[in-house]
Amino acid sequence: MPAPVVGIVGAGQLARMLHEAASALGINTVVLANSHDESAAQVAAGVEIGSPDDLDALLRLARRCDVVTFDHELVNPEHLAALADEGHVLRPGPGTLEVAVNKLEQRRRFEAAGLPVPAWAKATQAVEITRFAERHGWPVVVKASRGGYDGRGVWICASPDEVTAVARMDAGGVFVVEEFVVLEQELAVLVARRPGGETAVYPVVETVQRDGVCHEVVAPALIGEELAAKARQIGEAVAAEVGSTGNLAIEMFVTDGKLLINEIAARPHNAGHFSIEGCVTSQFENHLRGVLDWPLGDTALVAPAAVMVNVFGNGKVAEPAGKIPEATAVSGAHVHWYGKGSRPGRKLGHVTTLGPTADEALARARAAAFALDPREMGR
Amino acid sequence: MPAPVVGIVGAGQLARMLHEAASALGINTVVLANSHDESAAQVAAGVEIGSPDDLDALLRLARRCDVVTFDHELVNPEHLAALADEGHVLRPGPGTLEVAVNKLEQRRRFEAAGLPVPAWAKATQAVEITRFAERHGWPVVVKASRGGYDGRGVWICASPDEVTAVARMDAGGVFVVEEFVVLEQELAVLVARRPGGETAVYPVVETVQRDGVCHEVVAPALIGEELAAKARQIGEAVAAEVGSTGNLAIEMFVTDGKLLINEIAARPHNAGHFSIEGCVTSQFENHLRGVLDWPLGDTALVAPAAVMVNVFGNGKVAEPAGKIPEATAVSGAHVHWYGKGSRPGRKLGHVTTLGPTADEALARARAAAFALDPREMGR
Repeated sequence: MPAPVVGIVGAGQLARMLHEAASALGINTVVLANSHDESAAQVAAGVEIGSPDDLDALLRLARRCDVVTFDHELVNPEHLAALADEGHVLRPGPGTLEVAVNKLEQRRRFEAAGLPVPAWAKATQAVEITRFAERHGWPVVVKASRGGYDGRGVWICASPDEVTAVARMDAGGVFVVEEFVVLEQELAVLVARRPGGETAVYPVVETVQRDGVCHEVVAPALIGEELAAKARQIGEAVAAEVGSTGNLAIEMFVTDGKLLINEIAARPHNAGHFSIEGCVTSQFENHLRGVLDWPLGDTALVAPAAVMVNVFGNGKVAEPAGKIPEATAVSGAHVHWYGKGSRPGRKLGHVTTLGPTADEALARARAAAFALDPREMGR
Repeated sequence: MPAPVVGIVGAGQLARMLHEAASALGINTVVLANSHDESAAQVAAGVEIGSPDDLDALLRLARRCDVVTFDHELVNPEHLAALADEGHVLRPGPGTLEVAVNKLEQRRRFEAAGLPVPAWAKATQAVEITRFAERHGWPVVVKASRGGYDGRGVWICASPDEVTAVARMDAGGVFVVEEFVVLEQELAVLVARRPGGETAVYPVVETVQRDGVCHEVVAPALIGEELAAKARQIGEAVAAEVGSTGNLAIEMFVTDGKLLINEIAARPHNAGHFSIEGCVTSQFENHLRGVLDWPLGDTALVAPAAVMVNVFGNGKVAEPAGKIPEATAVSGAHVHWYGKGSRPGRKLGHVTTLGPTADEALARARAAAFALDPREMGR
């Protein structure tokens, strides 16, 4: 039997880390990349050059692979249907991907399944948003139904004027308007799932966001066992509801001691990068095992605490890659670097550390991240 | 600063695992491979096709890289000199590689440095071997001075007739003849070293050999702290003596409670594969950090015990890769597969497990290896 070949739509850092896990397991990968400069295309032997928006490129990729998976969910649903029609195996499937990118559909499905979501309504006009706000109070959160990520496509509106400004930005768009939730914490649950329904659930993590972008992750989240069990239960229920294959990330809010589902991603996720060193089986390995329908691996932590700090491009360090040796000098700092050019705000890498407590691990992870991105200490 | 580029002479599994570690750290690799089918060439974006015996191929590789390192030491010393003459950075350097491949030179150097070696003599004729045996007793161990590995090029001779047979095999060859050492245990010490002399020493491991080939590794070795400290001390002294850069493996015998140096390898080594999951920093990462002159990482174990079991090709399972899912079903089994075609006796992969004790970890690692190679249980 030759090595199984997993195709990956997209060649960002998630594809790169999938490639690293695949290589160890004897799995070959082919990444669909716009150019050989993209993160995963720099390191992977199998590269198909083309756009994820181009059906021909997707078909070329799929024909080289046993199964196709995704570094991001933003693929044209008609193209996914065409791939499936030609007999290619897509994991996760088009139905799961559609729920992951369609916030309106997510809210409908989760509410119908009895899963906890913020108060919400569909809105296509500013007046509907204002009406919702009058019922639930200002401010409200307005989200483009499709296409947002890392805080893009999300607006907080405190008045009818601000709503009009948002609605003008996307004339003809479909929005979800939601109550503004006062956050106590943000949590994430990662669930790996096989086609038959077997799941492996990771320890619940706390994510620390700034401007809608994840900056730090602490595993396990410092929450009570009851809340953690509830979060895992919701995670498993969401995975079953959307029929995910491979990794699914479920982001949740804690408000007033209760959990509300924020959003989901049907792929390996920034909130799970800690698992490379922090868990017996990483989210990347379990994603591959899930999409290949192999037995899933143990998700237990290998240390009392594992933390991850993201590294972003900034104006102060023109070439942060040159600081990697300095970052590695921090004891126990696992530096991951994606090979991307530095631009302000762009995720360039991350640092994971393990320790007896989250605080102890965070101190070291932040010190290493600081070498690469001096903003990291300005907290 | 663009990513540093590390060239690797050879494209076997050591190069493949170096590539995996390099990718995580933002280091690009170029491997020198005879074909795209070789283990590392299947997965790495940077491949230079050519023979390690061909100076032009070595030069093409070196010109694409910041530093050149090695998956094996069997490179023509004149070619190494030519690379150095053209200004390429070789790490480890030619002097270290020469000691690693030349058993006679090793014995001379280590003895001169006061390091413990078995009783030995140089021999170019059968009569010299016989004379040595008359002084030290039969049997004796005869080794080709250059080129042996995994038990090849090593003979145990119990009589003058057997010596004659060996000597005929390599007419004109240079041999080392050594006393036959009754082994209590075989140990290995891995030492990562930077050009300036900084070292990081791994916990001493026990290697279990069959027919001169490593089958299992147990970390830490179940030996007293005094013997372990002595082994680490010898390892560091050998690294300094040969001026190694990157990883150096020192294999030792325990006989009569004392240590004797068996042989060395100037590269990542099978005895250190456990470190991928078993240590804070793997031997592959520390090899890269050493050859790039970066700070070395912590070598501490992350669990009380880490064990590794090799998987070999055999006649019973034609396509062992098809059994990988079964092997991964064993809890906590980290399966590493090299993508090589199966031939009897060929190393195809390995399994690492961590546990509270070596016995507990070994039971699981052997169960996973058994799925891939049923011979593994026939112990």
